[in-house]
Amino acid sequence: MSADPISRRDVSDATVARLPEYLRTLSRLAERGVSCVSSAELASAVGVRSAQLRKDLSRLGSYGVRGVGYEVETLAVEISRVLGLTRDWPVAVVGMGNLGHALASYPGFATKGFRVVALFDDDPGLVGEQVGGVVIRPFAELPARVRSDRIAIGVIATPAAAAQAVGEALAAAGVRSILNFAPASIAVPAAVDVRRVDLSTELQILAFHAQRRTYAAPLSGAVAR
Amino acid sequence: MSADPISRRDVSDATVARLPEYLRTLSRLAERGVSCVSSAELASAVGVRSAQLRKDLSRLGSYGVRGVGYEVETLAVEISRVLGLTRDWPVAVVGMGNLGHALASYPGFATKGFRVVALFDDDPGLVGEQVGGVVIRPFAELPARVRSDRIAIGVIATPAAAAQAVGEALAAAGVRSILNFAPASIAVPAAVDVRRVDLSTELQILAFHAQRRTYAAPLSGAVAR
Repeated sequence: MSADPISRRDVSDATVARLPEYLRTLSRLAERGVSCVSSAELASAVGVRSAQLRKDLSRLGSYGVRGVGYEVETLAVEISRVLGLTRDWPVAVVGMGNLGHALASYPGFATKGFRVVALFDDDPGLVGEQVGGVVIRPFAELPARVRSDRIAIGVIATPAAAAQAVGEALAAAGVRSILNFAPASIAVPAAVDVRRVDLSTELQILAFHAQRRTYAAPLSGAVAR
Repeated sequence: MSADPISRRDVSDATVARLPEYLRTLSRLAERGVSCVSSAELASAVGVRSAQLRKDLSRLGSYGVRGVGYEVETLAVEISRVLGLTRDWPVAVVGMGNLGHALASYPGFATKGFRVVALFDDDPGLVGEQVGGVVIRPFAELPARVRSDRIAIGVIATPAAAAQAVGEALAAAGVRSILNFAPASIAVPAAVDVRRVDLSTELQILAFHAQRRTYAAPLSGAVAR
């Protein structure tokens, strides 16, 4: 596969963060049999301004057709390619408590090219268990597995106290992309890209909107304290 | 508690989406004992442009002090108030598989005013089990519990097939804010605010950056297919 010139362009972090949202909306439209969508319709479905959407997509080289809009399938493929989703990303999950189990069997990963190929935990009660066809292994086997399975992304699903050591081990084993679900910051070498997921972020956004409604209609279920 | 004039201002969805990020960064700074931060430092820690940060915060009425910056604690309290986090939000989780268990015991919720007060599942093997001090109850008890516990937010953690029925039941019971972790869209009355969480979104953003690095250094672990 040759280098894709699109990926070399300067696409801002803010645009990248919106691309999965665009892609999800396009997938929903495709499921409903919609083949063409105007920038105004797509922007409204995603919840961004139309000018923002057109600007984001023009960065990818997609300008749509005046008076017609964007071809849903073509645009979805294009965004997938920019996001790297037309490739295969072997993923390891470290920490096989409830969250690790949920992530290891999350149906949304596989459909986007994220293949969970390795699971790790040091709890003897978990080692050997199969989740989604993958056997949980002792954490000491991480370096060997990163090499043999060419693991590209490490997911940390441990308690907060273990997150730093796991991050360091992933980095030392050569993993360059880490998704951290543990409620703790981790420090890793600059060459490693860490994204932290806070599951309460979306609740905070919901609370903002609920609070705004409460002032308009004080019968909401929220309780002032 | 009187209506907060800040919440009546026109704060854009994009700004609201960044506020939890600002708050998380401010909390980390406060933990480290930092009492004052410049807009440039804060913007860099969050990963937004400095002008964007100043614009967002000015919408909340926070302008900082020229040459000094923002007081970390003051700004954190202000953002918390705008987001409604200084109030109490009783939360119900529906679907107590691995993801439901993980969410019910997620440490990040309680610290932000999201109190998980009710858990539901129809699996007889789960009903009666305690998670984080809350007993799992049959789903039929939802309407009574929404009233007695004044549940403000419903979290759907069921498989895709059950999500629509659960969303309808939550809406019928009077819940006006729904966080949907199930990998399926749900249709609810317009008065109900639904946010869908796709756990693969952050993986997609990581993949974008990893792919960009791969073109620069073709020894990445990612495998073209």
